[in-house]
Amino acid sequence: MQALTFELIKQDTRTNARRGRLSTPHGFIDTPAFMPVGTAATVKAMRPEQVAEAGADIILSNTYHLYLRPGAEVVREAGGLHRFMNWNRAILTDSGGFQVFSLGDLRKITEEGVSFRSHIDGSAHMLSPEKSIEVQNALGADIIMAFDECVSYPAEKAYVKAALERTARWLKRCKTSHKNTDTQALFGIMQGGMYADLRIQSARETVEADLPGYAIGGLSVGEPKTQMYEMLDVSAEQLPKQKPRYLMGVGSPDCLFEGVERGIDMFDCVLPTRVARNGRAFTSQGNINIKNARFARDYAALDPECGCYACRNYSRAYLRHLYKAEEMLSSMLLTTHNLTFLLHMMAHMRTAIEADRFLEYKREFFGKYGAE
Amino acid sequence: MQALTFELIKQDTRTNARRGRLSTPHGFIDTPAFMPVGTAATVKAMRPEQVAEAGADIILSNTYHLYLRPGAEVVREAGGLHRFMNWNRAILTDSGGFQVFSLGDLRKITEEGVSFRSHIDGSAHMLSPEKSIEVQNALGADIIMAFDECVSYPAEKAYVKAALERTARWLKRCKTSHKNTDTQALFGIMQGGMYADLRIQSARETVEADLPGYAIGGLSVGEPKTQMYEMLDVSAEQLPKQKPRYLMGVGSPDCLFEGVERGIDMFDCVLPTRVARNGRAFTSQGNINIKNARFARDYAALDPECGCYACRNYSRAYLRHLYKAEEMLSSMLLTTHNLTFLLHMMAHMRTAIEADRFLEYKREFFGKYGAE
Repeated sequence: MQALTFELIKQDTRTNARRGRLSTPHGFIDTPAFMPVGTAATVKAMRPEQVAEAGADIILSNTYHLYLRPGAEVVREAGGLHRFMNWNRAILTDSGGFQVFSLGDLRKITEEGVSFRSHIDGSAHMLSPEKSIEVQNALGADIIMAFDECVSYPAEKAYVKAALERTARWLKRCKTSHKNTDTQALFGIMQGGMYADLRIQSARETVEADLPGYAIGGLSVGEPKTQMYEMLDVSAEQLPKQKPRYLMGVGSPDCLFEGVERGIDMFDCVLPTRVARNGRAFTSQGNINIKNARFARDYAALDPECGCYACRNYSRAYLRHLYKAEEMLSSMLLTTHNLTFLLHMMAHMRTAIEADRFLEYKREFFGKYGAE
Repeated sequence: MQALTFELIKQDTRTNARRGRLSTPHGFIDTPAFMPVGTAATVKAMRPEQVAEAGADIILSNTYHLYLRPGAEVVREAGGLHRFMNWNRAILTDSGGFQVFSLGDLRKITEEGVSFRSHIDGSAHMLSPEKSIEVQNALGADIIMAFDECVSYPAEKAYVKAALERTARWLKRCKTSHKNTDTQALFGIMQGGMYADLRIQSARETVEADLPGYAIGGLSVGEPKTQMYEMLDVSAEQLPKQKPRYLMGVGSPDCLFEGVERGIDMFDCVLPTRVARNGRAFTSQGNINIKNARFARDYAALDPECGCYACRNYSRAYLRHLYKAEEMLSSMLLTTHNLTFLLHMMAHMRTAIEADRFLEYKREFFGKYGAE
């Protein structure tokens, strides 16, 4: 039995945008899909049904964080991540790679893996391809990610090449150690920094592993957006059409449209949930910051075109008050709104692709929303 | 038209416990009732429907806080407090008295009222009986409270006597300035510290004002519980049976039982919501602190006898994880549980009084819960 199947439903005729459907042990995922992030086995400030109600078919959770706290064994004993966090739809776990590489001085990379110190208590740990897969097998997500090396930006070409080749060697070890191939689908991750030839090399070496899906890593790490789109074009071209493509760490409306246009099927990002906690809301007329004084006596909905729980029941004046008073309900309502906004935007993109009017929808959207 | 009516449904035959029903412009309140506190126009960490689902017929909100932020005018312009915060059941606002007296060096009491400095920005303000009622009229709660002077504990008898007499004079000014008698019911507040004769004097002077309800203030301020119960006995005896009685600032299970047994109909306290945010949960087997290491691998429900959303869907291990990871969902779930626990306990008390088995229920409850 296969853990994951991907059906390509419709190919846009003028762009590389595609409409598909993933099938997992925890339900279907209509693509292009955005995955909200639930780092520590919770999408911050949300009950899980509210995440589903916002329109999420799948969420992402972080292996690094769960490995350190509460520990993979606790999650396994609890019946796996779905049951532990009361989320019955699909889950994708990352490999922990990105987080440990982000620790800077606290980590050391060898061929074996990455030794690092916990950001919580300074204790010493080691994540390797085998260990990452072992932890992800214990967590039990529907989609798990290979342990890769994401280089920082900018980076020397020689280093980027060495890193992508190590990533390819690590991918083989991930594939060998993966135990639950019938319930968990392993995706490989391409690297290659901002070098087109290295992106092509990494794509080819990754696709060689013949996996249920492929991710493009190492983008949206500080480079200009035009450069990211160029790397995306180069990478996507190398990928088999019948497999899902996941662009990691991308979640702003403009990047989502540009990614979909280039043939990406899946995205994740902390952006909509993180900015919500800082009082920032997506709206159909562009982004607003609710703490702004001009909302103090504004009794209209956050976004008059949105039908989410927050927009149906509360005014901007109330939301501003909650933010100023540092009330949790502020984060709860703005997160509900931002996720609903972004997930509805994805749903509209899917409908548009089906109707062969993706570019028209893109134009309509940004006509109101404005440039990012 | 009267803003509030009170129906006495059943008097316990062995104690002063009573079962009643208040009727307000925003629905019925079955008594004895506990009122969750929504200080800044939100019960912290809860959507309002979740507060209703937990079993609350009425919540309390704080005039002092709303007066300072967002300001009474904003709430009035928004259509009143119910609409502003999306809570369609009854609301009681306090007078701001307790909060300004608690400011210590930041406030000064005169016959006119209390001048004070904001705890938010240090700005200078004055709350008087007239100003408190004006603000409460703008907020539009179903029950509003007279502006009183709550003395600290312990206090000299001469000061307590002067304060209760000032409170009686202020009550007359509150009654005179109250504009919305057909939609908002004004309750008077008795004081008298820990002096039985002063409690009797204050009760008589307050009842003289002939109001829709009466509150007992200045208790649960640090005195031994036996002393509080004694003052309660003395005060309740002076009150007309056909009017609701509200004991302010009390919310632990033992105090609620003792209060109900002495004929109290209404209570409020931040306790269940505040301790929830600190990881403390009421359970049928006594209070627990979820951060305790013994819950790290405990996959049972928080309280196996509770049917709340948190107990139905999550384990102690998960709740402990959320608390340790400082996730908002920890406060959201524990608040849901604590409110449900306390409000169900009140509902059981009401059923027990109806069946003339209040004392039996009290014994059963504490047989499992243990002493506080």
